[in-house]
Amino acid sequence: MDRDKILLTPGPLTTTLRTKLAMLRDWGSWDSDFNDVTARVRRSLLRIIHGEDTHVVVPLQGSGTFSVEAAVATLVPRDGHVLVLDNGAYCKRAAKLTTLMGRTCTVMGFDEASQVSPAALADKLAADKTITHVVLIHCETGAGVWNPLQEVADVCAQHGKGLIVDAMSSFAALPIDARETRFDALIAASGKCLEGVPGMGFVFIRKAVLDACAGRSQSLAMDLHDQYVYMEKTGQWRFTPPTHVVVALAEAIAQFEAEGGQPARLARYTQNYQTLIHGMSRLGFIPFLDPAIQAPIIVTFNAPGDARYDFKTFYASARQRGFILYPGKLTQVETFRVGCIGAIGPNEMEQAVAAVALALEDMGIASGEPAI
Amino acid sequence: MDRDKILLTPGPLTTTLRTKLAMLRDWGSWDSDFNDVTARVRRSLLRIIHGEDTHVVVPLQGSGTFSVEAAVATLVPRDGHVLVLDNGAYCKRAAKLTTLMGRTCTVMGFDEASQVSPAALADKLAADKTITHVVLIHCETGAGVWNPLQEVADVCAQHGKGLIVDAMSSFAALPIDARETRFDALIAASGKCLEGVPGMGFVFIRKAVLDACAGRSQSLAMDLHDQYVYMEKTGQWRFTPPTHVVVALAEAIAQFEAEGGQPARLARYTQNYQTLIHGMSRLGFIPFLDPAIQAPIIVTFNAPGDARYDFKTFYASARQRGFILYPGKLTQVETFRVGCIGAIGPNEMEQAVAAVALALEDMGIASGEPAI
Ligand SMILES: Cc1ncc(COP(=O)(O)O)c(C=O)c1O
Ligand SMILES: Cc1ncc(COP(=O)(O)O)c(C=O)c1O
Repeated sequence: MDRDKILLTPGPLTTTLRTKLAMLRDWGSWDSDFNDVTARVRRSLLRIIHGEDTHVVVPLQGSGTFSVEAAVATLVPRDGHVLVLDNGAYCKRAAKLTTLMGRTCTVMGFDEASQVSPAALADKLAADKTITHVVLIHCETGAGVWNPLQEVADVCAQHGKGLIVDAMSSFAALPIDARETRFDALIAASGKCLEGVPGMGFVFIRKAVLDACAGRSQSLAMDLHDQYVYMEKTGQWRFTPPTHVVVALAEAIAQFEAEGGQPARLARYTQNYQTLIHGMSRLGFIPFLDPAIQAPIIVTFNAPGDARYDFKTFYASARQRGFILYPGKLTQVETFRVGCIGAIGPNEMEQAVAAVALALEDMGIASGEPAI
Repeated sequence: MDRDKILLTPGPLTTTLRTKLAMLRDWGSWDSDFNDVTARVRRSLLRIIHGEDTHVVVPLQGSGTFSVEAAVATLVPRDGHVLVLDNGAYCKRAAKLTTLMGRTCTVMGFDEASQVSPAALADKLAADKTITHVVLIHCETGAGVWNPLQEVADVCAQHGKGLIVDAMSSFAALPIDARETRFDALIAASGKCLEGVPGMGFVFIRKAVLDACAGRSQSLAMDLHDQYVYMEKTGQWRFTPPTHVVVALAEAIAQFEAEGGQPARLARYTQNYQTLIHGMSRLGFIPFLDPAIQAPIIVTFNAPGDARYDFKTFYASARQRGFILYPGKLTQVETFRVGCIGAIGPNEMEQAVAAVALALEDMGIASGEPAI
């Protein structure tokens, strides 16, 4: 029996058959049919953040990290100074790519079990006037923290700093409203909460800063300004688009809209999340984060304290029952992660909990309780 | 009637249903099943160029251009000096991305209707000792020229220069043998002659130069050395892979091998090419290039001399009959292009010629003969 496994990971995730079926055609990337798909996807994406008046959206080939790097390369002048608010692995990666491309980068560290602090940011911006841009990870997928986007955006606006938001794992699920929240760039990708397949990202850029971005990128492939100008002129991507990924995304967005858009998606993921933590708590598992700062996207659980616990065995055991779990990404504590996103509902989450229970049994472990 | 159109373009191209069907599953990018697919693809790719002993292969997310840029960024030291042998549009793009990333770049121009000259290269390398790397486009898809890879590689080897080959549109069709031809890097992509879907590229890197590449790239996403080291250690991609594109490529490679590998693919494409030019010559069309330097990959035809000819109308007319043609990419002469690659055979090429004949009729044009 080789039934498809349910992916409880932060992407790639489980997509609908309808989304995958859209990939059964080949599209000419120069053809008007395909240009129409690109245009439709871009319009839909802008609508999701109510950004029609304030922002443009630029799709980019590659994984999400490519779009994060492209946003920094395109938005930040070569003599700019980036402040990264760091409470996890994806923050550290943003800092790394910023430094590597030669932009001055300051990292402001926070505990990975807490949100970043808007007040601390305000102090920092008051103290160091050379900072030009702030990078925030909206949902820090490393531990699963929901960071305070609105408050951080307000502080940046007050200080006149550009804000670059990595909303990779939150976009289309957590609310983001460009009419109320000021950001210069916001990044997400096809294979996350929109439930498309992986292979492209996209970056919202504030119209007011767009023109100034010309010529900043030292990378041709990642120059979002160049990609934007070309796309506006021709309707086409500059370089061969991942055509099948794009049409799958268009189909995924149609289903997203039919479901009721971001509020409906958040409601389903929240249900998934509730089902998961209630089920897991019955088994003795304790979430790593305070529920007050937990995004209903991905949940980090402390590993069981029992000495017989071993992640590889646990993973294999759950996998054999049809569920793909995700390793922890924390440095200090032993953890594992379970995603709540994808084309799945509470039924799948209940089944996942049942699979976890059996995996514990396999290891001869009575409870998921962590060592204190 | 909405039958799938035949793509006579240099990619995306027509793929088999079997290749597309492979995309009907979701794969966890951290899972061993998927790691196995990645490993299998990498082994097969190395085999195609007989590079098992001399080279490694590093896959990269994004379009082909991303892999070209990554190869230059990873291979060329920051104080390196790149000489681009330029006989067309893709050469110019390679020069542009090299310059943009801050490497010194010299462009050696040749006519777009001729091959680059190994003798001129030898003179240049003798005259300018600061050159560290040479960039060659194997098949210059702009006009369709088959450039003399072996001779250029020999000159580079004699002068001890690194050679970076963009084999995007030739790899898996034109012969390339790493045991006989010395190159430091060679680049291709999923959606070309392997007949996969677009969304990833890959770069062969000579083992002898690999270690020296650490830390050269100013781009995190495009650092092929980092991607390589991580992949060797974990079996995984550093950042989310385009899972569906990767499994489609694996399936396309299985069909490539079953067909008889590169010699069989070249034979089929050569048949496609012959069928095309014979049919087109019956209609009066004249290929732009001397047949002696024409690769059987993509053919540039001079536009008909008749004043009633208009590419948009011509394209729409052929399209309505099920065939997607490709615009010319030359600056001086009005042309159009017809690809010979993809999961198509002589039947499709005959039908394409018939569609072109009807398109001429639509425009009221008696013959495809160009103005002299
Ligand atoms: C917050 C965040 N940023 C960036 C990324 C990187 O995306 P990718 O793996 O597609 O490069 C991820 C992936 O999960 C993410 O969750
Ligand atoms: C020779 C050559 N180099 C580079 C490219 C660029 O590839 P992509 O459009 O996938 O970025 C192509 C595309 O056709 C090509 O033919």
